[in-house]
Amino acid sequence: MGTVGGGTFNVLQRNAAEIARRAGRGIEVAQIAARHVNPTCDLGSTPVTDDVFAVVNNPEIDIIVELIGGSGVAKEVVLQAIANGKHVVTANKALIAVHGNEIFQAAVEKGVMVAFEASVAGGIPIIKALREGLAANQIDWVAGIINGTGNFILTEMREKGRTFEDVLAEAQALGYAEADPTFDVEGIDAAHKLTILASIAFGIPLQFDRAYTEGITRLTTADVNYAEAFGYRIKHLGIARRTEKGAELRVHPTLIPAHRLLANVNGVMNAVMVNGDAVGSTLYYGAGAGAEPTASAVVADIIDVVRTLTTDPNNRVPHLAFQADLLSDLPVLPVEQVETAYYLRLQAQDRPGVLAKVATILSERGINIESIIQKEVEEQDGLVPIILLTHRVLEQHMNDAIAALEALDDIAGPVMRIRVEQLN
Amino acid sequence: MGTVGGGTFNVLQRNAAEIARRAGRGIEVAQIAARHVNPTCDLGSTPVTDDVFAVVNNPEIDIIVELIGGSGVAKEVVLQAIANGKHVVTANKALIAVHGNEIFQAAVEKGVMVAFEASVAGGIPIIKALREGLAANQIDWVAGIINGTGNFILTEMREKGRTFEDVLAEAQALGYAEADPTFDVEGIDAAHKLTILASIAFGIPLQFDRAYTEGITRLTTADVNYAEAFGYRIKHLGIARRTEKGAELRVHPTLIPAHRLLANVNGVMNAVMVNGDAVGSTLYYGAGAGAEPTASAVVADIIDVVRTLTTDPNNRVPHLAFQADLLSDLPVLPVEQVETAYYLRLQAQDRPGVLAKVATILSERGINIESIIQKEVEEQDGLVPIILLTHRVLEQHMNDAIAALEALDDIAGPVMRIRVEQLN
Repeated sequence: MGTVGGGTFNVLQRNAAEIARRAGRGIEVAQIAARHVNPTCDLGSTPVTDDVFAVVNNPEIDIIVELIGGSGVAKEVVLQAIANGKHVVTANKALIAVHGNEIFQAAVEKGVMVAFEASVAGGIPIIKALREGLAANQIDWVAGIINGTGNFILTEMREKGRTFEDVLAEAQALGYAEADPTFDVEGIDAAHKLTILASIAFGIPLQFDRAYTEGITRLTTADVNYAEAFGYRIKHLGIARRTEKGAELRVHPTLIPAHRLLANVNGVMNAVMVNGDAVGSTLYYGAGAGAEPTASAVVADIIDVVRTLTTDPNNRVPHLAFQADLLSDLPVLPVEQVETAYYLRLQAQDRPGVLAKVATILSERGINIESIIQKEVEEQDGLVPIILLTHRVLEQHMNDAIAALEALDDIAGPVMRIRVEQLN
Repeated sequence: MGTVGGGTFNVLQRNAAEIARRAGRGIEVAQIAARHVNPTCDLGSTPVTDDVFAVVNNPEIDIIVELIGGSGVAKEVVLQAIANGKHVVTANKALIAVHGNEIFQAAVEKGVMVAFEASVAGGIPIIKALREGLAANQIDWVAGIINGTGNFILTEMREKGRTFEDVLAEAQALGYAEADPTFDVEGIDAAHKLTILASIAFGIPLQFDRAYTEGITRLTTADVNYAEAFGYRIKHLGIARRTEKGAELRVHPTLIPAHRLLANVNGVMNAVMVNGDAVGSTLYYGAGAGAEPTASAVVADIIDVVRTLTTDPNNRVPHLAFQADLLSDLPVLPVEQVETAYYLRLQAQDRPGVLAKVATILSERGINIESIIQKEVEEQDGLVPIILLTHRVLEQHMNDAIAALEALDDIAGPVMRIRVEQLN
């Protein structure tokens, strides 16, 4: 009964009348398992136990709401609830992304539902939109800001010229970021959510271990400003794209055109773009975390489950949008097989001919330069930054090019590389 | 079988495999009623008739898809289909907004569904989001750009400094606007859609005749530019808000802060903001019209209906989100009872003391000025524009104030008044 558990209880209590008018019946919290009662909640006579399996094995209960998090006891709880023939609602992205295939198979065998809207982008009903609202479409790609902490950091860096480290420390003080920020800033949390979105979009099994994940820790305010000069903004995106060769599944900093709505999603807010062959581009925006926004999704799932308690299981919306026995074996591509455009920042010695060498290395690998900024003023260390945008190229060719660039005597230190997406 | 009918047929054909993998069964177009076959469609062996009631009375058919439009034969078709025990999917906003209460009552009595996602904002699954995705919330307000033609005109006026008349003529030439543009530019089309959104948001019967509707025909490029100077943009919004006194239901030009996502929705695109007590602000963006975006919503509805064909009717999602016998009698407020902030533009004689008289008239009615622009340079007609933003005030007090301002000898012509919303 932590943040989301407390929020869920409070929303169910406060909006009980509204919810009953919608669902056609009341929804009662029959029992709570918690180590500590959430101090924001007035539990009244609701029974509380510290034994989570007392709830899971309670024969009076129809739906188990798992808000523990992680893959330890949460996984046991979910699998035992399914084994007991109970429906499950969960906000647990790590559990679904890593163990979802196993969990959904168990649920299908028992004829119960596992609902997980709250696991991606908090209160935004993005799973419902993808799985039902856009069910007529072949989904071509999904691109989202699906980690609020990372977006808060990037927004502050851009708007106030602050460094990554400075903003991260503030985010930790404000409670946006965990003491160990790895899951947020290295993109692991976003990769969990992207894994779920990609499966629902393309009808493929959950494959978290195939997702490419790159964090935002190496971004500098200089990169943020150069991106701006090119008419772009840097966002930490989760991107899933269907190509003829396979599915791309990647989380990394990305330059996107400054005029796109997604580029204007700031602070801790989340947003997901979905492109379908019939509908074109759509976008879904809202709070990606927090007690009540997440509770909004949890309670919506509870209402959905309540509505379909008596439905023939074969007529329900499948967990991953597609019938469980009709998932596709479309492979997830290694990142070397992904094609994108690139932003490159090089630190060059201020000598004649450097730019020609750089251009030659790129051109020999079929990489076309779209635009370039070469700073006229030498910096303190005697190095001149060269910043360029390329056309689209396979990642493996860009890796070759960067290795060749870094081997030049004229180039100091590593080449900064950020992928670029037009999202059109 | 016009634009949307053709799009629906083509999406069902092209994505038949994808749709069957989702729905768990195939969906077949059994018969088409059309005066003319849509030339974009390859009908194969699908039977076509010019008698729409031959389809409606065909005992082999489970679902009638009504894409005729208007309230004439379309209404007969829908009511006859219901009487025949068939489910209905429609994109007809005028029919639902004006005759929805009657249609839904008939559907409830026969235990069939009438699905109408495509009637609001084209391909954006906004009805599903409001009715299911946000079902845990008390919805506080909805505000949307729900007419693409109007938004195209306002976007061109702002970005290119063009006049309303000039852009309208282009929109007509491009086919965005009808030869008679009244429904679009006077806000009637938007009011149909807003009426539907408000009913679903607040659980009230459809009351199109109570919606306040004001068009964009009087907006000048001067207003667009002054709004920009204050940090705002002008959008033609449909706004529904729940207050303690009743529900607001209004379509009018509106100044909104330029940094809001909604202010950055340009061209023919649509977007709807929804604010709920648990989730906070959310936004849904996409194409609001066009053959395939609208077909995306029609086909999603067909899939939804197919999934629940065998469901107990009492467990289905209610047409207006709330159980039909539990709709609220919350009154729709007359616009005089609406409270908003205002943008006012006056043409004043260039004499001392005019501003003091204006300020006195406002202050006597409890209207506080938030900011003001008085042009220093006299215009050709010897008049000086005074532009001001007020704090929030009841519309009836503003009406009084404007009458008093227009009665001043120092003020020439009518006062331009545009409502202002912060959307926070």
